[in-house]
Amino acid sequence: MDFHVDRLALIGTGLINGSLALALKKRGLVGEVVGAARREATVARAVELGICDRGTTDLAAAVEGADIVVIGTPSGAAGRVAEAFAPGLAPKAIVTDVGSVKASIVTQVAPHLPDLTRFVPGHPVAGTEHSGPDAAFATLFEHRRCILTPLPETDPLATARVRLMWQAVGSAVDEMTPEHHDRVLAITSHLPHLIAYTIVGTVDDLEEQAQSEVFKYAAGGFTDFTRIAASDPVMWRDIFLNNKPAVLEMLGRFTEDLIALQRAIRWDQGETLEDIFTRTRAIRRGVVAAGQAYVRQPEDPLATKP
Amino acid sequence: MDFHVDRLALIGTGLINGSLALALKKRGLVGEVVGAARREATVARAVELGICDRGTTDLAAAVEGADIVVIGTPSGAAGRVAEAFAPGLAPKAIVTDVGSVKASIVTQVAPHLPDLTRFVPGHPVAGTEHSGPDAAFATLFEHRRCILTPLPETDPLATARVRLMWQAVGSAVDEMTPEHHDRVLAITSHLPHLIAYTIVGTVDDLEEQAQSEVFKYAAGGFTDFTRIAASDPVMWRDIFLNNKPAVLEMLGRFTEDLIALQRAIRWDQGETLEDIFTRTRAIRRGVVAAGQAYVRQPEDPLATKP
Repeated sequence: MDFHVDRLALIGTGLINGSLALALKKRGLVGEVVGAARREATVARAVELGICDRGTTDLAAAVEGADIVVIGTPSGAAGRVAEAFAPGLAPKAIVTDVGSVKASIVTQVAPHLPDLTRFVPGHPVAGTEHSGPDAAFATLFEHRRCILTPLPETDPLATARVRLMWQAVGSAVDEMTPEHHDRVLAITSHLPHLIAYTIVGTVDDLEEQAQSEVFKYAAGGFTDFTRIAASDPVMWRDIFLNNKPAVLEMLGRFTEDLIALQRAIRWDQGETLEDIFTRTRAIRRGVVAAGQAYVRQPEDPLATKP
Repeated sequence: MDFHVDRLALIGTGLINGSLALALKKRGLVGEVVGAARREATVARAVELGICDRGTTDLAAAVEGADIVVIGTPSGAAGRVAEAFAPGLAPKAIVTDVGSVKASIVTQVAPHLPDLTRFVPGHPVAGTEHSGPDAAFATLFEHRRCILTPLPETDPLATARVRLMWQAVGSAVDEMTPEHHDRVLAITSHLPHLIAYTIVGTVDDLEEQAQSEVFKYAAGGFTDFTRIAASDPVMWRDIFLNNKPAVLEMLGRFTEDLIALQRAIRWDQGETLEDIFTRTRAIRRGVVAAGQAYVRQPEDPLATKP
């Protein structure tokens, strides 16, 4: 079954929405793309980059006549933008989103929509540490995964259409409940980001001379953390605030484990350390086997070590 | 000034020592390489791979007539191997090492050496998550940094010779005290590894069904941690046990910061979160500017996101 959308409306024209539009355009799968953003300058830039054919800061106008509307704002703004664009929705319009949390998006957005059978919350698990329209690129979703979390009310045909859209740009699509999504992402994405933000912040508090040395020897391991700690601050603020129970639960487990490791170091429990480090090596093999790790070749510039 | 060594003795023939030998051989900068390891099979493999010209499990025999001896064992074994090879040392021999901790290496090794003026502790900050002779490759040290921590007794000419060796294989060389090295590496390398081991271990404790989902969606951030948590377990056990005060100090700072962030999430302090995440973005720029980050291009298979 082929995918094509006559008119696509983007609420937000940043990395994810921008890349989606570029990916569909590259393949000739979209008629017209209308982009909406809060600031005129962002809209103008998105048009200039070819992400959308025309743009506006008026959200209700942006969705007029659109077949598919994609919410691509930080997750904390989803309810507000839905309220603003809802009056402009055509009866045929499917509404989806690309937010990294799902239960909160449903809670925020659903009350504003005229027809929940056409609401398909989604989350393409792809991205970079960059943000904004200039960060968008057409191949972002190739060989990635996308999770859809339809509601009990959602029409399976609407879900199927959004599924086709993500498959068309190169992603494998899974379905689960919003709550299950939020628990899985808490450990695979939210906790890692929180940890990375913390350790990079700890370094930021070192005196300046020490900092410059940290930069110099960052290849020893620190570098791996700085990349994800460079992700969009507002987006991540919203993720943590909107997936609080799952994040705090995973953080609790992590802290317990960290304290246990700290104790093993303090009391010279070499065997305990070696056991843990041997188990974690196996996990890496699992990730590599699942095709979710980019295994660097020896010639790569980021071969790192202690 | 050119570097050449007539006879090089490797105590340990793993990733680092193996790569050093391959790098020197590729450039024609070494006469003969003698490799020593604990197990016959490892020695045989190192010879087979062209890392050394001949090998032995007798450490005193391995260093006979050597101009430079490089200790490349896990850091907890350095004292034991120094005691074993010391009787075979030629008076001319310079002894150096590649360990990731330095104060402990000095404490362990120095008592066994006949002549401290010829002891130059060192640490090439390069590597991969793989270990053993098969992981070695000739370009490992190119565009990397190496830290030397000479003792007050060390002859500056011996230090200069070891410096030339690392420069010859492509590294920039710095000097500092062993104690300073251990503090800098605690934050740039040891703490990041400890955190990565912990979070990957936390996942290992999830029930099996959850684990397979973690593998599937690992590209959301978790992947970055699995690579460094796949590093050699014995080497890392020894690093944590042998750099205990600095690691515990940095871990204490990290835990405080993590708890503060946890509190900000629990109490919905969005501004605090956004402030921290904005600061950490600047740190990434510092690391990139220092040339210590491999900045992935959009086309790279590991473009990741929440």
